[in-house]
Parts: sequence; C-alpha cells; structure tokens
Amino acid sequence: MISHYSKVEAEPVAMEGAKEVKVRWLIAEREGAPNFYMRLFEIAPGGHSPRHKHDYEHEIFILEGHGLALDGGKEEPIQAGSFLFIPPNVEHQLRNTGEAALKFLCLIPRKGRPPGPGAPLR
Amino acid sequence: MISHYSKVEAEPVAMEGAKEVKVRWLIAEREGAPNFYMRLFEIAPGGHSPRHKHDYEHEIFILEGHGLALDGGKEEPIQAGSFLFIPPNVEHQLRNTGEAALKFLCLIPRKGRPPGPGAPLR
Repeated sequence: MISHYSKVEAEPVAMEGAKEVKVRWLIAEREGAPNFYMRLFEIAPGGHSPRHKHDYEHEIFILEGHGLALDGGKEEPIQAGSFLFIPPNVEHQLRNTGEAALKFLCLIPRKGRPPGPGAPLR
Repeated sequence: MISHYSKVEAEPVAMEGAKEVKVRWLIAEREGAPNFYMRLFEIAPGGHSPRHKHDYEHEIFILEGHGLALDGGKEEPIQAGSFLFIPPNVEHQLRNTGEAALKFLCLIPRKGRPPGPGAPLR
C-alpha cells in the first residue's frame, strides 16, 4: 500500500490534556499492520500533547516545526530530524513553541494500544 | 531518549542488490526498544534498495527526495510525505529517480529482524 499522508483525514484529539492536536492514523488495523501502528500528529502553535505516561512505548520522529519535549524529568528542544524513544511508563509531553505547525510521526505497538474513541480503527 | 538523526552514524548497506544505500539505526536494541525498530535510510541519486521480499513487514515514511517504489506488482512515484505499508512476503524496492538524496524512515518489527552484519545491534 502506497499513499500520501495528506490523503488521510486529520481528526481532532479529544484526549484530556491535549490542546490543538490532530492525528492521522496512517498505518494501523485497517491496513492489517501486524505489530505496530504509524500515526502523524500535528500540533498548532501554542498547543501540546497530554502530559502523561502509559504502559507502552512511543517511537517519535519530528517532521516539521519547533517545540519542546518532556522525556521523564527533562525538557529538551526538538526540531525536524529529532527523534525520541519514550519507554513504557515514562512521563512525556510535546509542546509547540514555534510559529508553524509541529508535525511528527508517533508509532505505538499494536499490543497495548489505548482503546476508545481517542484511538479509532486506523 | 531525545536525539537528532544527524548524530547517528550512517553505515553503508552491503546487502546484495543494494546500490548507494546507507542506513542509520535510530531506535533499536541499544535503546531497549521492546517491539519495533526505527531506521533512517538514505539512497543516493541512481541508487536503489534490494528488490526482495521477506517474512516481516515494513512501515515506511518518505522524508526527502523523489523516487519510485515497487509494492508487489506495481511501481508508483514517491515523494516527501508518502508512506508505504509493505506486508510480509510482498516484493518491494525503492529507487531514487531524483537529483538529491532519497531519505526515508523504515520500521521493522523486533521479531523477525534479519540477523547478520547488515543489521547491527542498533
């Protein structure tokens, strides 16, 4: 399957603690991905993802924009080309401190995927 | 763990059928990734990845450049923002048909990782 992310609908993230965040589920259940899922997030200037932790990991790659990432106890600048490995149960948050959209890929294991409307079936 | 891909060494890919391909292992065993690994590939103009298939999937996101991707029986143009899901046992190849580097992320499951020097421990 070959596509382009702009063809996938961007859905608002209603999760508590999220501000101005949209998600596109690029590769997930609908595509038959057996082990892990690829999502593309977009955070508007001034927005942020929830500050939280959970029992599954994130693998993140920053595509566009500038921001700050909390990874456990420390917050560091991020920009295009930055990547993050957030192990299970480590508190994390991404904030857009720039003037354009902060876009990044965030991959999660299929096992441990959060249920509910915040994580639709793609 | 927060880093930038430019800080990770780009290693030549010696796999048979690969031409002008380098790989950076961004998130893998060394980082303790439990379920899947993130690599960043760079193919020089005129180069290509091996035309092959294997029993594990790829999840690919194109970062920079232009090329053609073989996905099973068909070849399609790819560019920044294109993404590919290559299921297990589907023949595939990426070729750089542009004038600049073709850069992309290619993620694989931890289970089924190819052994040997082509896939170092990170």
